[in-house]
This record gives sequence, C-alpha cells and structure tokens, in this order.
Amino acid sequence: MSSPKTYALYYWPEIQGRGEFVRLALEEAGADYLDVARLPVSAGGGYPALFRVLKGRLGPRVPFAPPVLRTGRVVVAQTAAILRFLGPRLGLVPRDEAARLWADQLQLTLADLVAETHETHHPVAANLYFEDQRPEARRRSWHFTRERIPKYLGYFERLLAAGDGRHLVGRRLSYVDLSMFQVLEGLAYAFPRTMRGLAPRARRLNELRERVRERPRVAGYLASPRRLPFNEDDVFRSYPELEGKRLGGRSR
Amino acid sequence: MSSPKTYALYYWPEIQGRGEFVRLALEEAGADYLDVARLPVSAGGGYPALFRVLKGRLGPRVPFAPPVLRTGRVVVAQTAAILRFLGPRLGLVPRDEAARLWADQLQLTLADLVAETHETHHPVAANLYFEDQRPEARRRSWHFTRERIPKYLGYFERLLAAGDGRHLVGRRLSYVDLSMFQVLEGLAYAFPRTMRGLAPRARRLNELRERVRERPRVAGYLASPRRLPFNEDDVFRSYPELEGKRLGGRSR
Repeated sequence: MSSPKTYALYYWPEIQGRGEFVRLALEEAGADYLDVARLPVSAGGGYPALFRVLKGRLGPRVPFAPPVLRTGRVVVAQTAAILRFLGPRLGLVPRDEAARLWADQLQLTLADLVAETHETHHPVAANLYFEDQRPEARRRSWHFTRERIPKYLGYFERLLAAGDGRHLVGRRLSYVDLSMFQVLEGLAYAFPRTMRGLAPRARRLNELRERVRERPRVAGYLASPRRLPFNEDDVFRSYPELEGKRLGGRSR
Repeated sequence: MSSPKTYALYYWPEIQGRGEFVRLALEEAGADYLDVARLPVSAGGGYPALFRVLKGRLGPRVPFAPPVLRTGRVVVAQTAAILRFLGPRLGLVPRDEAARLWADQLQLTLADLVAETHETHHPVAANLYFEDQRPEARRRSWHFTRERIPKYLGYFERLLAAGDGRHLVGRRLSYVDLSMFQVLEGLAYAFPRTMRGLAPRARRLNELRERVRERPRVAGYLASPRRLPFNEDDVFRSYPELEGKRLGGRSR
C-alpha cells in the first residue's frame, strides 16, 4: 500500500453484505479508508487478506467473522460494534449518551432484520447451497414477507412519525439512517412485489430512502465502481420463487 | 411497587430467553433490580407490563422487543446494548475502551449463536409452532450440531487459550463470561449428546462454566426461585429428535 489510510475495512470483496453498512458510513463521511480485500491478491488484498485477519494477523483479539475494521491499534468486528465505534468519529451520531444508546439499539434491530433476510434463502444451513434448501426457503419466505417485513417496517415507520419525520435518531443524518437506506434497497431488490405492496404503509421510510440516495457523497458512491451490484451470493438475493404463493402451516 | 429499585428489567416472565443474560449480570453484581413482568398483574406486572412498554409507556424511544432495561431516564433494549450499558456500572467489564469494544464484539457473537439456536426449532417462522416445522427443524439442527456449535465453541475455546485461560475479556470476570456460562448451560440442555461429544475440545470453556456456576451470587441465584427452569417455550429447548440422524443435503 503506497499511502497509509486512516481506516482499513476487511470484508468479502464480491458482496455488499454486512460490510456495506460500514462502507456507507465511511463514504458519507468522506473518510479516508481502504477496502483491503478488494485489492488484488498481489497487492495484499483478496480472500487471503481476509483469511489472515481471521487467523489473528491483526492481534490477539481475533474476529469470528468479517466485517472487521482497523484504525491505529483498534481492531473491531461485528457491524453494530463497528458503527458504534465509528459513529462519533465520523459525526454520524448525536453527542449525547442516550441518543447513542438509541442508535445502537436501532442498529441491532436492523441487524436482526438482515439476519432474518439471510435465513429466507438459507433456512437450513449457511453451508448448503440455496438449491439444496428451496422448499424450506419458500416456506420461510412466505412468512417473512407476510409477517416479518411488515412488522419491522411498521415499527420503523412509526418511529419516523413519532420523531421529526425524517431521521431515526435525533434531527440529523445518522449511521442508522444510512443502514435503513441499505435495508430498504436490499429488500426492494429481494422482494420487489412485497415492498411495492407495503409502500403505502412505508411512506416516510421511502422518503428517507430517497433523501439518503440523493446525498452527494452517497450518490457519488452508488455511481462509482466501489459500490458492488446486488447479486445472488449476497444477503439480499433476487429469487422470484421466494415471493410465490402460500406454503405455510397454521399461524398461531 | 413499594420501594423504587435502581434497575427495572422488562422481559417475558416465563422463560430465561435473552433476558437471562441481563439477569445474570444484575445478579452477579448484587444490583438492586426488579424483574417487572414477574410481578402479578395486580401489582403492575405480567404480560400487560411488557405490552405497555412495547406501546411506548417508557417514552418515545420505543423498543422493538424485550428485554428492556430502565434506570432513571435511560431506557435501553437489545441484550448486547443493555450489557454494554450495564457493564461499566456493574463493574463487569474492564475500564479501557479497547477491552470494552472487545467485550461488545464477543457479546454480539454470542447473540448470533443464540439466534441460530432459536432457528433450530423455528427454521420456518417464529409465529408457527414447532410441531408445524419439524422436518425443517431436524435438517437445520443436523447442520447446527455438526457445523455451527463446533465452530463457535472452537472459536471461544481458542480465545481462552490465547488469553489468561480463564476469562474471555481481560483478567477478571466480565459479563461476557456470564453470558458464555448461560450459552453453555443452554446448549447442554438442548443438545446434550452433541455437547458431551465436544467436551474434550471445550475443556477451558467447561472450566469457565463451572467457575461461574460456583460464584456465590450466581450459585445463590441459580438455587433461588428467581432462576426460571429451562423449558420448551424458551430459546434452548430439549427436543431429542433434533439430535437425530442425518437429514441434510450436499455440504459445500
């Protein structure tokens, strides 16, 4: 690496995944960062860079999984922990402790939604191919699109309505708004029919999504090659069969 | 309530669940707390107390789900966020920032393991009964017991080996050790055969588990009626069929 960057991000180089929440925060803040695994292997990047991190290359506090952020002597993994760490440094969270706790709580709730989204195409095992768990994926997705997405979106829509209508935390953009944008983008990619159906009940959320998309640095990032396209190795996947008809059991 | 307590915990009154990680921290610290929903409805407890919290009774920062902790004007939900908040106040995390980040990261990793455990009996939908998703639960559990539990336990066992051998964070008991204890107890209840098989590879973890169990306040708590028994409405459930034989697909 020619010039040392302030932040080094280690994440899978071919997907947005959970790393995207960190990338969006770094991009919106105009931070000086390197997405290490996207460098060529010959330049110290690629999968080998990631595997070295998971084997302890960055010190004794070995992460369980990417994303991992390093800055100076700090090494931190787990998306919500990375964003809590970065938030104050990047000016993406209010100063008071209560608001920071609130941001963290909302980020963890979004993380739960992201994890549940992953389960829609991998309800049996992350180590199996989607093709080996399609019937289970269809059942899971039936419930996810009809029960879980409406529940989560209803919750966040109500929070916007109860606040200033434009921000989830405080009265300025926070990393939670950026993450909400990413979740809405991802869900619209994965479950377009469901999301169109819910649009009347997610008006404020969709306005937030458009505002974030149009922010100059976010817009610049989305138009750049740094933004990886959605794809079917990622958390949000376009499998039309998962928006199909009923395959559920009794609901309780 | 006759005398106001320092901490009020709001969690489902009939399960250990995610609330148990908070209860263990409060108990080990000898904190002055009230487990509100375990009071009779006539005394302001029970499910109605929980539902009021989820409807905004504690203020505009409405939680998505229990557990919820209130102290003074602070209201915080999401287990890992609650423990990060409580850790320094209860003396259950080291003082330096890097160690606190590390504790948070490990707690979030344990939270992922707990969520995956829940998926073993609810791989299709949390809103369906287990009986309506048994084939899927058996497939999921086959992979969970053979791939996921060994991966997680191997990770934490290596961390103990790389540290002082006795603590996951620093050189004193932290809330992460308490949570590790709870996860090991729960997995041993839910998947006894798997955990017996893994014991030789989890020697330090099992020693940690015994040390935590024998701490005077933890021991007192476990022997008290405040500790709810494991049961089949909880995250960790004893369903012997989920430790059965192979029902998987191709592993990749």
